[in-house]
Amino acid sequence: MDTVSENRCFGGTQGVYTHASSACNCDMTFGLFLPEEADDGPVPLLWYLSGLTCTHENAMTKAGAQAWAADQGIALIFPDTSPRGDDVADDDAYDLGKGAGFYVNATQDPWAPHFRMWDYVVEELPALVGREFALDMERQAITGHSMGGHGALTIAMNNPGRFKSVSAFSPICNPMGSDWGRKQLTAYLGGTETAWARHDASHLMREVGFDGPVLMDTGSTDQFIDLLRPEVMADAIATRRQPATFRLQKGYDHSYFFVSTFMEEHVAFHAEALFA
Amino acid sequence: MDTVSENRCFGGTQGVYTHASSACNCDMTFGLFLPEEADDGPVPLLWYLSGLTCTHENAMTKAGAQAWAADQGIALIFPDTSPRGDDVADDDAYDLGKGAGFYVNATQDPWAPHFRMWDYVVEELPALVGREFALDMERQAITGHSMGGHGALTIAMNNPGRFKSVSAFSPICNPMGSDWGRKQLTAYLGGTETAWARHDASHLMREVGFDGPVLMDTGSTDQFIDLLRPEVMADAIATRRQPATFRLQKGYDHSYFFVSTFMEEHVAFHAEALFA
Repeated sequence: MDTVSENRCFGGTQGVYTHASSACNCDMTFGLFLPEEADDGPVPLLWYLSGLTCTHENAMTKAGAQAWAADQGIALIFPDTSPRGDDVADDDAYDLGKGAGFYVNATQDPWAPHFRMWDYVVEELPALVGREFALDMERQAITGHSMGGHGALTIAMNNPGRFKSVSAFSPICNPMGSDWGRKQLTAYLGGTETAWARHDASHLMREVGFDGPVLMDTGSTDQFIDLLRPEVMADAIATRRQPATFRLQKGYDHSYFFVSTFMEEHVAFHAEALFA
Repeated sequence: MDTVSENRCFGGTQGVYTHASSACNCDMTFGLFLPEEADDGPVPLLWYLSGLTCTHENAMTKAGAQAWAADQGIALIFPDTSPRGDDVADDDAYDLGKGAGFYVNATQDPWAPHFRMWDYVVEELPALVGREFALDMERQAITGHSMGGHGALTIAMNNPGRFKSVSAFSPICNPMGSDWGRKQLTAYLGGTETAWARHDASHLMREVGFDGPVLMDTGSTDQFIDLLRPEVMADAIATRRQPATFRLQKGYDHSYFFVSTFMEEHVAFHAEALFA
């Protein structure tokens, strides 16, 4: 693992690191914020998974999360959204290939050799950072935005006991029913829809649910709301009787101006679960 | 004036607008955050002047200022740092030409036809936004980062009575004594140093001072600190007996991770003066 940069930030350190990933079969980059409490011992970790077109950097510079994580004494990790490099397959569309890993393990060509973001985020990266940094891996929580909200919800529900809490900003709620989903799931996983189900947050919510607190925020005037399908998630939450807070925020859109506005509440929500 | 975008943000609106600038003789773009209090009447205005290479966008997306401005009920304006467009002269260096207006009125070729950022920020833009938005132009304050800290300090001290308070993040304190200054002042204003003096914040502090509270923060390990010359400003403040808070913040560098860390305190500092 190599250090790309470390900047002092809210009394802690915002670092950027690269490492050779065996899951993705390429070099991967991630951001990690450590609050000053990490100088004295392991701190809880909140995952932030980013959306389409993002790298590790977008949320790290635009979401304003470090202020609140520093207040709470929580670390933040910002993984990239896909494998990278000249050897990695890509597509001209912004929503397939690089920047659009969708947090799955691709089984189809040309994606299968590198697009294993599920294994990367669920297995390889936690093992790496748990070894290299002062992180209490018994106290993890997860959030994300858009495609990253999809990733946070599906990873949390597929790994019971791993995360104390899960939240999402404008998540892709029902990729099996949306053009932000059917296209990518077909490309990465093939046309058999049974292979898709564990990557559909609304389906998981209906079938499995989450053993802990759940928070979701979506802008009522999000320009992509028809692709996000929050109504399917709302129905699933209510049908399952899942303890959850599901909110449509009046007048907000899909941007980081929306994410940053509600970041304080999301970090406080996770802190309550992490320090319970 | 045309609206480029408006996003709901911390209960208010983060807008981006373009207009034909007569000062710069080109189209100019700026960001303006209006807190929700602006729906009910004019609110105070805090100027944020950006540093080298920046546009109106950097601080707007990375400084985290809207959170605190919304708390306080203050508007924020983010001007660009130079004229723009194909007709505008430029230089291969990052610190001259586009992105590097230095908040002066250039008198030398090839810069004189467009590089009039002093008139733009001091005269034209305040007149425009005072007319177009719910802003109380009797209650203005000013801050900035690096080259923008230089701009904030020199504009505040050259316009007594205009601003209730002035602050700066890692400002260029003494451009007459630094390669971040002598090069640009020569290019824009010519070789006669008497024309430079009103654009040197430390000189102004020594000669004129500021009739209101002053706050400056610089990282103790800022990678550009030898170019910023905070020691000259510190001496000027002390020599003048200027009421001011001058801080070197241990371990911080020149990045927006530094700026965002101390933004809450700067906005609160200005709010105290604006609502006094």
